[in-house]
Parts: sequence; structure tokens; C-alpha cells
Amino acid sequence: MEAKITAENGKTAIGKDGSVAGFDSLHRLLQSSLPPHLFQEASRLLIGLNCGKTLDSVALPDPAKSLSVNHDFDLQAFSFRADKESLREPRSVRVGLIQNSIALPTTEPLLDQKRGIFEKLTPIIEAAGASGVNILCLQEAWTMPFAFCTREKKWCEFAEPVDGESTKFLQEFARRYNMVIVSPILERDVNHGETLWNTAVIIGNHGNIIGKHRKNHIPRVGDFNESTYYMEGNTGHPVFETAYGKIAVNICYGRHHPLNWLAFGLNGAEIVFNPSATVGELSEPMWPIEARNAAIANSYFVCSINRVGTEHFPNPFTSGDGKPQHADFGHFYGSSYVSAPDSSCTASLSRYRDGLLISDMDLNLCRQLKDKWGFRMTARYEIYADLLAHYVKPDFEPQVIADPLLHKKA
Amino acid sequence: MEAKITAENGKTAIGKDGSVAGFDSLHRLLQSSLPPHLFQEASRLLIGLNCGKTLDSVALPDPAKSLSVNHDFDLQAFSFRADKESLREPRSVRVGLIQNSIALPTTEPLLDQKRGIFEKLTPIIEAAGASGVNILCLQEAWTMPFAFCTREKKWCEFAEPVDGESTKFLQEFARRYNMVIVSPILERDVNHGETLWNTAVIIGNHGNIIGKHRKNHIPRVGDFNESTYYMEGNTGHPVFETAYGKIAVNICYGRHHPLNWLAFGLNGAEIVFNPSATVGELSEPMWPIEARNAAIANSYFVCSINRVGTEHFPNPFTSGDGKPQHADFGHFYGSSYVSAPDSSCTASLSRYRDGLLISDMDLNLCRQLKDKWGFRMTARYEIYADLLAHYVKPDFEPQVIADPLLHKKA
Repeated sequence: MEAKITAENGKTAIGKDGSVAGFDSLHRLLQSSLPPHLFQEASRLLIGLNCGKTLDSVALPDPAKSLSVNHDFDLQAFSFRADKESLREPRSVRVGLIQNSIALPTTEPLLDQKRGIFEKLTPIIEAAGASGVNILCLQEAWTMPFAFCTREKKWCEFAEPVDGESTKFLQEFARRYNMVIVSPILERDVNHGETLWNTAVIIGNHGNIIGKHRKNHIPRVGDFNESTYYMEGNTGHPVFETAYGKIAVNICYGRHHPLNWLAFGLNGAEIVFNPSATVGELSEPMWPIEARNAAIANSYFVCSINRVGTEHFPNPFTSGDGKPQHADFGHFYGSSYVSAPDSSCTASLSRYRDGLLISDMDLNLCRQLKDKWGFRMTARYEIYADLLAHYVKPDFEPQVIADPLLHKKA
Repeated sequence: MEAKITAENGKTAIGKDGSVAGFDSLHRLLQSSLPPHLFQEASRLLIGLNCGKTLDSVALPDPAKSLSVNHDFDLQAFSFRADKESLREPRSVRVGLIQNSIALPTTEPLLDQKRGIFEKLTPIIEAAGASGVNILCLQEAWTMPFAFCTREKKWCEFAEPVDGESTKFLQEFARRYNMVIVSPILERDVNHGETLWNTAVIIGNHGNIIGKHRKNHIPRVGDFNESTYYMEGNTGHPVFETAYGKIAVNICYGRHHPLNWLAFGLNGAEIVFNPSATVGELSEPMWPIEARNAAIANSYFVCSINRVGTEHFPNPFTSGDGKPQHADFGHFYGSSYVSAPDSSCTASLSRYRDGLLISDMDLNLCRQLKDKWGFRMTARYEIYADLLAHYVKPDFEPQVIADPLLHKKA
């Protein structure tokens, strides 16, 4: 469980992504550098572990541990706490998150690249299965490099229908391990003019396709040229009622939108997955903030996944920032983690290595926090429904009270 | 500027509030315990300071520093960065936040208690004035102990009309220092049946009263029995256009409500103050999360203030948690800080001492971040206006897609 600190490309990883120390995760940096009582206090302030409590770690079966050693991926497991209730049994769920780098250079044939990822993921999915994971989620557009920085359309070939090759690949595992799998892919909608979407396919624990959700908010920032590939999703904010609880998927950039998180909560989500692809200099300081805030504000669990590594493309591209052309998107910093509604969270997976993060959670905690904090009860949704109804009109007048002396004496 | 670590009551502060080390702030714990390059990396991940950059500290005039030494309050000052624009001049504003403990025991005559706080605050306000602060904000219900844990109504005597004694006290300073002052008080509305509100009075830089805002969301959690004293505010989400920019006030528990933050943003706020009173075990792990998330999501600055110390009341009370009666609310952990829309933030003031935090900010940064990230552009408010309009109806049907095999094979 104690992974070595193995920076990708040694010194290359240091500095280029803003990191100055090449540490595998903040948690490991602090744990290895602070005396125990100070690490405990930092943890209390940072990850919501009160009074010296820590999240329990979970003993995983040997086959899972062997797979992690033999295939060199980070493997960590934690257990969240919830109160025992008098009138409900615990609803314990084991969730798995996978983060990974791509398998082959982007110059290899596309089919080889995709199959290479399938092969690479197989032992990690098997480790999840061997660990009794109930719900597994992969990273955003997991079948391909995150090529949307290039603006080239050849990468659209990676798109698949919802029941395509990648879904069939995962359906096998879902059946074998009685596991719900969330599979975020580049979707091609063959029934609607072969349009593309950024989509999560929800595969039930019997291998059936329960449904899909399409990314609601598409970024227009940095090298995220996704809006030249696909449009804002048209599937609303569905919550999928699975054998292991009510889940939803807030794909990547949607995590910056509090209303998007809210909508999944209003529809009853207990776990919201946030499969992402994001790079160090742009978003890393936001990464420990937004998901935890969403978990607290909406009284549900949030599972954050980010891909790993630096992906080099054959043709260089510019970023509209006056800097020279370059051939990579930056370092995807991994750091997948889980946030709970009580404001606690797990340590993060490695910034550099593939990984599987396993978390045990009792979904009863969601309602317990609703009862404790009363955020829903006190939310006054009526006034916000009214405000938004006015705001979306072009003649909206903001509520501004100007200092009457402002222009007289200025 | 480098304050001593002086835990209130020495060992008493350790443990009771969950703190295990008595450290003054997380920033100081890490700075004094980590080697410089690791402190730099932790800061990058924790407070959004990329590539070894740190927030510039600000040189304050000697009179301010003397006041801080002679009157034993924490004094820190930071400067946020913004790009220089070609078509707009910088709009630099110096903001001050004050956190403090009460002056006298709660058993003293109420008038003495109030006047004692006036006296205690005077040198801190003068230090703000001497430092050229443009906008100053005090903590929630600053004229009184946070007595709403007791459920006793005698404390209602602290309530004042908007143009009452505390406002007059601050108007003097506003005029003297050409300073906007945000004054959060317990308000008595003498024109409406002498009802009470939790209100922020906005005093203009000429000493005039620009307006008021009443707390929108009232807690029903822990010992926060505020809902037995006053109701949800009826002033909407006003933004006050002052000589130094557009400001708003999200009072205390409102910080848990993303829609509340959003509404101030939609009305054009550039700085939102969050005067608070909150205690360690309940909310401390949320404290570094929610304000920063609001600053990021809404592209404005957030100024978070929390009171300091433990307040003991004459009559003990229970907390509805099965624990013995007690006579205090817990430790108010201070830790006031400022968050910027670019996800950076200042270090926090002390967990134990009175303090003045000064921050220089160029309000142009708000629009720069809107242009960079495009959160407003990509927010799709229409679908959320529609969702909320349906949600508030009793017959709302959540969007749930159930696994059709769920009840067949289960």
C-alpha cells in the first residue's frame, strides 16, 4: 500500500507541471515530512478528520495486492464512517476509481492504442473485482488519449456508440464481478447524424446497459478545445438507480458549476462520479476544493478521477497564449480521491502512477448529514428559482444599491 | 508580522476544540515544520500558488505595526496579483478583516460588554485606518457574545436599529479614514413590530449608511439556535456599489449554500464578505473549502471572518446530543482569510488571537478570470431555472433511471 515515489521521467515531472518536489501526493509529502502529532493536526484541518480520528484503511485480498505490485499501479483503500441507525440497516457500498496513463504513443495505429488501454486496464479492473468492488468508475474518455487539445478531427475515430467495443469489453467484467461500471467515452450517436458527445455509459451489475449521461458543460479554456468536437449534453441530470445505490456522473468541467452538482443532488444522487482529465498548472489548486465543496453542500459522496501522465501528439499546436507551439497538453496529475458529505476525504492517489482507489461508504451517511446540517431545509429554493427565471432574460436588472454620494462627491 | 504561537489558556485550547498541537494556523504549522522546498510544494497544492510564486506580503506603516504589538493582535497583509490590462486601469482596493474575542465576561452588565468591545476594537480599526484600508469588515454580531446557543431572550437587548449606537461608533471611523465599513449586528426593526434580524449595515466612506442586508439562511444545527431569535432575511441578494467596488455580504451559515453565493455573483459582486461565528469541531474542516469554492465558481473575491475564543455563559444549556449540559459554545477558531477567483488565497489569521488581515486586490482580476475560465458563458442557467421551477412544486418528480433488472433479479 505504501507506494514508492516514482516521478514520471524523473526530473521531467519536476517543475514542468509546477511541482517542485516530485512528491507522489500531498498526503505522502506531509506524512513523510511532519512529526506524527503535526501530521495529525494538518490532517484534521485539511481532510476533515477530527480529534485524531483517521479514516480506517481497508485490508484488501492478496490477489488484488499482487496485481498492484506486478502491474505497478497505486492501490489504496479507505473506509468512511457513518452512524448506526435504529430503523435502517447500513447500506455499505465499496466503490473503485481507476486512473491511468495511456498505453501506447499517440503515433501508433488507433486500434492498437485502444486495445493497449484495454490490456493495461484489465489487471486493474481485475483487482477491483477481486476486492469486491460494487461500483467502478473509469476516467473521462478512457479509451483514448485526451486529444482535444490538437483540434484535429482524426481522433474522432475513437468515438463509439453506447453499445460499442469498449462497452462490450466492460460488460464482461460487470457480469463476472457483479459490478456496476461507469464508463466515460467519446460517444458517436449513429441515430442522430453521427454526432459526437462526451458520455458516461452506465453498465449494470448484470452487464446490462442502464443508460447514459452526456457531459453538460463544455470547457473553453486553455487547450481544452472540446467544444470543437462536441456540444453541451442533452440528457439533463439523470440519477441511475443501481443495485448499489443512486449514482450520477458529473463529467470533468462540470465540477466548476455548482448548479450542475446541485441538480444531481435534487434528483436524489447518493454518489456522484467526476471522471476528469485536467492538468497541473491550470487546475491543481482547485482539485482539492470543488469536489469536497459539492459533497458538503449536497450531502452526497463525490468520487473524483483524473488521468495520469503527459501525452505527446504527432503535430504541434499553439495554445493562444503567445507561447511557442508544443506537442503535449501538460501533465495530467492523477490525484483521484473521494469526498464525503461530512467533509472528510480520502488521501489522493499518486500524481504520477496508474492507480485504483477503493472506498467503503455507508450511503446512510447522506441522509444523516442532511438531518444534521439541514441544508435542504434551509435552502429557500423558491427565491433562487425566481432569481434564475429573471436572470436568463436579456433585460435582467441586477439588485444593486449604489451609494448616493458616489457620483456627487467623487 | 510573525506572530508568536500563543494558545488561549495554554493547554486548554489543545484538544477541546479538536486541535492537537495548539498551532496558530495551518500555514504557520507547515512553514515552521517543513523544509522550504516542501513548504513551497504544499503551498502550491493547498493555496494555489503556482510555480514557486507566493502572494506578495505588504509593508505596513509603523503606526499600524505598533498598534498590533501594543494591543496584542495578529496583523498580516498580503497582495493578490492580477494582469495589467491594456484598456482598463487597475482597480486596486485594500480590504481589512477584523476578528476578535469579546472584551468582558458575559456576566457583566450588557452595556459594559458592548462598550468593552468598542474599546477593544478601536486600536484595531485605527490600525486599519493607518494602513489605508478602503473597505473594512467586522465579524458577525460583533457587538455581543454569540449568545444564540443559550436560547435565552435577554441577549436580545443587544439588538440595535440600523442607525443605532454601533453604527454611529463606526460612522466616525468611516469619515475619519475615508473607509467603507461593513458592520454585522443583531438588528431590531423598530418599524416592523420590533422584530430581530441578523443584519450587515453598509457604511459608506463618507460615514453615510448605504444600506443593509439581512442574513438569508438561518442554521438549525448544533448549538446554533439562531432560528429562535430571527427569521430568514427579506432583503434579497443586494450588491452595494461603493466608492471602492461592488460588494455583498453572505452572512455566516449562508456560506454553505452555493445558490446564495451564486445570487450575489449574478447581481455583480466583486467582493463578498462572509462574517461568521463558527466553532472547531463542527465546521473547521469546511472552513478552507467553501469560501474558496465560491470565489472560484463565481469569479469574485471572498473575505471570510470568524470570531475568536471561547465564550462562557452564566446559565448552562444542553445541545440535544445526549452530552452533559455545558456553558460554552466551543472554541471559535478565528482563521479569517481571503480567497481570490484565481483559486489562490492568503494565509489565515490566528486560531486564537484577535487579528487584522489586510489584502490588496485588483478587482480587474474578477473579469480576467471570467474571460479565462468562461464559467458564466458555459453555465446554461436556463436549464437550472427550469429545474428549480419544477423542484419547488410539491409534485416534483426527480429524473431517475432505474436499472430494469433491479427488482427482477435482486
